[in-house]
Amino acid sequence: MTQVIRILENVRATTPLVHCMTNSVVPEITANVLLAIGAAPAMIDLPEDARVFAGLASALLINVGNGLGEQHQGMRLAVDAAESAHTPWILDPVAVGGLPVRTALAREVLQHHPAAVRANASEILGLTGESAGGRGVDATDEVEAALGAARSLTQSSGAVVAISGPTDVVISPDRTTRITGGSPLMPLVVGTGCSLGAVVAACIAAARSAQLTDHDGVVAAHALFAAAGTLADRQASAPASFRTAWIDALYTVKPDEVVRLAAIEES
Amino acid sequence: MTQVIRILENVRATTPLVHCMTNSVVPEITANVLLAIGAAPAMIDLPEDARVFAGLASALLINVGNGLGEQHQGMRLAVDAAESAHTPWILDPVAVGGLPVRTALAREVLQHHPAAVRANASEILGLTGESAGGRGVDATDEVEAALGAARSLTQSSGAVVAISGPTDVVISPDRTTRITGGSPLMPLVVGTGCSLGAVVAACIAAARSAQLTDHDGVVAAHALFAAAGTLADRQASAPASFRTAWIDALYTVKPDEVVRLAAIEES
Amino acid sequence: MTQVIRILENVRATTPLVHCMTNSVVPEITANVLLAIGAAPAMIDLPEDARVFAGLASALLINVGNGLGEQHQGMRLAVDAAESAHTPWILDPVAVGGLPVRTALAREVLQHHPAAVRANASEILGLTGESAGGRGVDATDEVEAALGAARSLTQSSGAVVAISGPTDVVISPDRTTRITGGSPLMPLVVGTGCSLGAVVAACIAAARSAQLTDHDGVVAAHALFAAAGTLADRQASAPASFRTAWIDALYTVKPDEVVRLAAIEES
Repeated sequence: MTQVIRILENVRATTPLVHCMTNSVVPEITANVLLAIGAAPAMIDLPEDARVFAGLASALLINVGNGLGEQHQGMRLAVDAAESAHTPWILDPVAVGGLPVRTALAREVLQHHPAAVRANASEILGLTGESAGGRGVDATDEVEAALGAARSLTQSSGAVVAISGPTDVVISPDRTTRITGGSPLMPLVVGTGCSLGAVVAACIAAARSAQLTDHDGVVAAHALFAAAGTLADRQASAPASFRTAWIDALYTVKPDEVVRLAAIEES
Repeated sequence: MTQVIRILENVRATTPLVHCMTNSVVPEITANVLLAIGAAPAMIDLPEDARVFAGLASALLINVGNGLGEQHQGMRLAVDAAESAHTPWILDPVAVGGLPVRTALAREVLQHHPAAVRANASEILGLTGESAGGRGVDATDEVEAALGAARSLTQSSGAVVAISGPTDVVISPDRTTRITGGSPLMPLVVGTGCSLGAVVAACIAAARSAQLTDHDGVVAAHALFAAAGTLADRQASAPASFRTAWIDALYTVKPDEVVRLAAIEES
Repeated sequence: MTQVIRILENVRATTPLVHCMTNSVVPEITANVLLAIGAAPAMIDLPEDARVFAGLASALLINVGNGLGEQHQGMRLAVDAAESAHTPWILDPVAVGGLPVRTALAREVLQHHPAAVRANASEILGLTGESAGGRGVDATDEVEAALGAARSLTQSSGAVVAISGPTDVVISPDRTTRITGGSPLMPLVVGTGCSLGAVVAACIAAARSAQLTDHDGVVAAHALFAAAGTLADRQASAPASFRTAWIDALYTVKPDEVVRLAAIEES
């Protein structure tokens, strides 16, 4: 728990600069969420600019949801640059499985040592080839059904693997953590999952600068989201007002409140 | 009226998966609106992925507002795939008329049997070549002035044609329905028109699975928007708070409340 | 002050049509802000459509934040068309300095006589080559440190130059105006700076049609943003609810209230 507090404090202390290469639906909420938690967003897709920036950023998010070919080319260059510069990068394999182009892209970049993979259960199964993925961006598989695939993925890639659901599971080769919290309204707000990928990036950067593990960073990000979701759920009962309350809560919630509100369980 | 209730209930019962190929301004509100009404959004523009997905989705939205050439190519493939798979698809000819590239695209895809065309009066006149279109995305023509063009369009294309305005008109070869409701604040919130196109897609899918007509589906979508607009107008007097109240209302309003709030008139 | 009032009244009286070519993060907030102040937005990036539209619009915004190559090509054509048609156009050099592609683009279009350049201090220094730009989209330099670069820029380009910060500075060859107001929450809402560029475009169009100067138009835009920020700050203490209150305030604030709320100082 003290790691979560230290990481969230360190995000505000160091303002990690997160290079986001993300889909066309969520850039605005992703940027607003990063600003709310104390990080700094930069969306840069153009190949040459992305290549330059990935080497300078604190962390890089690759979200393979809806984008065009030139952005995909930028992602390839950015992942290469991040790998060379030891910039931690995060893969969010949105709706991977049934869609041929983005599935091939996700599997290709996965070879370049992401620090973490964050997805729902169907996407983890889609990425590892054990399922055709979910229904659009929604998971049709349960979190626990993807645990085996997630364990294989963390072993083969070295990445921390996070599966989002009512209870999130964060897995690395020698550690499994479950985080419970949030609200049933969260899946009704587009971008809550995608912006979590960006917050994972920010928290991994903050964890590394505090000499903590990437696994700790991923747990801190999920705990923060769960806690803000729990707080917003007390204030709002419909998705648009929930969205406002939730971003406000990401801004106002204190790190010690996060660890009180989110149920974090190691196993 | 019972058709409207059955369709809106069926959206929540069947969660139609709406493949949205839409403009750069509105993906987020479109996705949030679909989630609020009980449907599932998927934004997929990349040609090969769009081609695959259009055959699997419950319905497809083609909105020719601001997009790039690769998305336009994806739209061509998706419309073809939808036509082959009998996936209902909806055309929203945003600002068609004066802009050469998107006007040519809209007229080209129109040949592939859309289930519905949804637009404002200027766009209907622009699509049929009777006007140079509106002023940007805003209508400069009155709904009633576009009735003749809409009648020609439904005859020639077979599509249900909906003209949005203070009173919406839904026209098919043998039926005309007018829906009144909403709020004068709706045109001040970007994406209320564009997301209506996506909701038309969801409601046509739900209508078909309930053995009702596409015309019924288009009416249900417009009635839902009008009712939510009326409810939100009671709570908010400026556009950003209206936007929140309106999306919340799309989530909370019950189907029987929709038919009480929206004035639906057959002629 | 009377100029500010006349310009803001004239925006509502004439509804300037603002052609926005902007980055992937902010189209929605930009459109909503333009609608809230009484202007009309049109986002058109496709080269041939952008070329046609730039000649018809009331003003054009070129924001070189995150975009793809085809949009950049469209910007070149649109700037040419605007210059030929004497359409005022505004340059927003987002994150220019360290990123090679967008920096070259910004410097290239700058040769085509923008009416105004709006940026933060780091971006002004990045545009003139005196700094490598800020940290992503955030300024790392102080407004006053960029005054010299801004003076050179207004002399060489003929454009009114506006530097955004806690106190904004608007500079033309023979006039310097400072505007103070707003809220510390504004930098935590993505797009408040980018949408200011669009409002500068609308206000320059409204100033010209009222036989006032472009400098007056830029000041009016900044005063409106500062006043709305001050009003929203009284209602909200976290970024998402601030965003709602701020857009509402842009819609409800009266021109005479703007000049009472924003401190405008000529020097």
